[in-house]
Amino acid sequence: MQPLTRQMPQLARTIRVRNENRVGVLASVLSLLARHGAHMGDIRIVSSGRTHILRDIDLVFDTASAIDACIAEMSSQPGTSLVEVRDEVLDAHAGGKLRIRSSLPITSLRDLSRVYTPGVGEVALRIAADPAAAERYTLLGNSVAVVSDGSAILGLGNLGARAAAPVMEGKCALLAELVDIYAVPIVLGTQDDATIITVVEAIAAGFGVIQLEDIAAPRCFAIEQTLVERIDRPVFHDDQHGTATVTLAALLNAIALAETSLGILRIGQIGLGAAGLAIARAVMQAGANPVRGADVNPEALERLRGHGGVPSTLDEIMATCDVVIATTGQAGLIRPSQVRRGQIVFALSNPRPEITPEDAQAAGARIAESGAMINNLLCYPGVCRGMLDAGATRAAPELFLAASRALVALTAPGQLLPDPLDRSVHFGVARAVARAAMDAGIARHELDRDYFEGDSSVP
Amino acid sequence: MQPLTRQMPQLARTIRVRNENRVGVLASVLSLLARHGAHMGDIRIVSSGRTHILRDIDLVFDTASAIDACIAEMSSQPGTSLVEVRDEVLDAHAGGKLRIRSSLPITSLRDLSRVYTPGVGEVALRIAADPAAAERYTLLGNSVAVVSDGSAILGLGNLGARAAAPVMEGKCALLAELVDIYAVPIVLGTQDDATIITVVEAIAAGFGVIQLEDIAAPRCFAIEQTLVERIDRPVFHDDQHGTATVTLAALLNAIALAETSLGILRIGQIGLGAAGLAIARAVMQAGANPVRGADVNPEALERLRGHGGVPSTLDEIMATCDVVIATTGQAGLIRPSQVRRGQIVFALSNPRPEITPEDAQAAGARIAESGAMINNLLCYPGVCRGMLDAGATRAAPELFLAASRALVALTAPGQLLPDPLDRSVHFGVARAVARAAMDAGIARHELDRDYFEGDSSVP
Repeated sequence: MQPLTRQMPQLARTIRVRNENRVGVLASVLSLLARHGAHMGDIRIVSSGRTHILRDIDLVFDTASAIDACIAEMSSQPGTSLVEVRDEVLDAHAGGKLRIRSSLPITSLRDLSRVYTPGVGEVALRIAADPAAAERYTLLGNSVAVVSDGSAILGLGNLGARAAAPVMEGKCALLAELVDIYAVPIVLGTQDDATIITVVEAIAAGFGVIQLEDIAAPRCFAIEQTLVERIDRPVFHDDQHGTATVTLAALLNAIALAETSLGILRIGQIGLGAAGLAIARAVMQAGANPVRGADVNPEALERLRGHGGVPSTLDEIMATCDVVIATTGQAGLIRPSQVRRGQIVFALSNPRPEITPEDAQAAGARIAESGAMINNLLCYPGVCRGMLDAGATRAAPELFLAASRALVALTAPGQLLPDPLDRSVHFGVARAVARAAMDAGIARHELDRDYFEGDSSVP
Repeated sequence: MQPLTRQMPQLARTIRVRNENRVGVLASVLSLLARHGAHMGDIRIVSSGRTHILRDIDLVFDTASAIDACIAEMSSQPGTSLVEVRDEVLDAHAGGKLRIRSSLPITSLRDLSRVYTPGVGEVALRIAADPAAAERYTLLGNSVAVVSDGSAILGLGNLGARAAAPVMEGKCALLAELVDIYAVPIVLGTQDDATIITVVEAIAAGFGVIQLEDIAAPRCFAIEQTLVERIDRPVFHDDQHGTATVTLAALLNAIALAETSLGILRIGQIGLGAAGLAIARAVMQAGANPVRGADVNPEALERLRGHGGVPSTLDEIMATCDVVIATTGQAGLIRPSQVRRGQIVFALSNPRPEITPEDAQAAGARIAESGAMINNLLCYPGVCRGMLDAGATRAAPELFLAASRALVALTAPGQLLPDPLDRSVHFGVARAVARAAMDAGIARHELDRDYFEGDSSVP
């Protein structure tokens, strides 16, 4: 088993401060906050008077004690007063993050007869006679179940089903808002592999895609594989393939920025859990040399060897590789002295990386990035949209490779990745994935020229 | 096993007709339609000119051949022309009947940090430390899973999971629109009892209430009972308790209209499947004498005896009971000659009853009603809302009895039931159910006076 390091999450707070309206007061407040390690978010003027100005400042703290220390010190700060400290993030989650509504108005008996009985009886019989009609007359063709057993939540470890719920709701909210998918969080009150497989297989009757999330390695590998074999629709573990897809895209962009090419590089992967192994596999599938891999777990090294990689060690990887990717969950694992001049370093553990991009670059890295920027939010919405549009029968590796290449094509010059809040990026990925499904012969739907019109995402 | 009679559903169509704009043309069109047995819905003027008038007419036909015959005859009808026949009901179901959206806007990096990482990490950890916090910070406190294995869909029989989907979506759409619940259809690709129990138990971690639907008798009884024992939140089979609740309310109103009282009546229940047995139990719980029951299945009669009822026969019930309730799924089972003067006859099979209200009344029934009016849509939204509001730990019989009594209190004078599209009816039921949960000591939430303010639903 890979050790589960429970990193504490960062704490987001909004403070309201009333400052004297003169030059320099805000700067001194920010200096005070910075001394306590607060990361600065948005600063908004609430009201502005002749003598005073009221502002809300969004902050992220590393510890609860840092918040307390800040509050204490601000009380003696000249020219400023702390009006309140709000926990807006927590409030934002109150009541859950999804809303459901009917796609049809239900205000008259006529509406009722359409949505409910007797109208729905004909629809049910039609589907019974032709199960493919469910694709058209139910949510099946546009739905994703986001399923977790809560065994590996973010970087926080095994917190169980209920704690997984807010995370899965967030993923579903993004699927809904970014690519118009009906996405349902399903958290499972069991961590027994056979039971999970039974449950997911049963509920798959009503969903177009099954997206597995935050299931711990190595259990995730067998669970995913068994479900892929048993379900005739796409099933994929996002922690593996989503992360790998986005990392590969960032790597391809970094390689272009560094004016080198994938085939001549030595690539090392530190940490061979769900994400790490998938990254190594995706990089090799894209044409890289056998990836060097390091992990504290000998079984993880054997799994890498089974996929064509080469077992190695952290020290050797740091000393010999041109590209180093780390997904260990261990903050600060890589010392600056280990970084070699010219390396590309992706330290992806969240919320705190193995080495910060700043430290890696100061130590000579050519390009350095953390998991805050390399986020699988750039993958799963577009991939799900594209698989549903094409009626893909499985989430084949070619589809994820196509998604990586689309992300590269959609990245602005000089950047590593596109903007995850730009919906056109996700639809670009969707078109590339749909095209790849058609090319691979696993698309059940015909997509016409209109679907791909104006498509700049397919290289 | 109870025989599953597959009744054909009725077919809803909208026809567009272009008539000469003179008195009498529409009447003759309606006469033509009536000769083919078409039930008339809304009639809407699309456009009106000096010489012609264009109308849409909503119709419900009993058979596909009736539609064809109508179309053929209209082509030779003077003064009118059939422009098109539309299948609007089917079109209304295209793409599924539910839409999901995020409860928060997601347009900026700040939004993203709240909904997704890093903000969600703190929420997850808080729930891990205190699972009750999931009630507040996830959908748990406001969600219902509407679960079916498709084994007894409407009156249509065992059509399987995919065919159940449009029906469950309709139920969820109504929960969403009528009482603001986050309701998710879950259709199961299995009809194995043990597997269903395993699946529902696992997914129950993420839902506040489990509403079982359209699971065939007698399997539904053991499935419901086992889930009730294993899950610490309300689980109920709507076909049993929803139907029984609404039937009891209609019966109590009918008894008041007939100026008699429950305790002195002989009551007979024909058909002891899921709905029938539950109706017999609810009626006895409300204070009726032991209910006479008839069923072709000896085991069903024994189940009735176990709940305090008296096995009987259809003929004996028709000959001796003051109240006859039928839930057999067999259209036309009761002959008008069997109806006794003064009887209350509820023939509830949908879409075609054991005897039509018109025939029963012509044969001397004091009050007669069919399942088109006595519909469990009047029960489950309010019951679910009330159980969630009170944090009820189980769907106890007292809650359904309270719902029946609230429906009686909310019925207009002279009617059997209130309007199912009136949201205030459902919230009235909700308050009565929440009050009953508090009285029964199974409410986890404190509800204050404001919640019950202006409450006319609690008798």
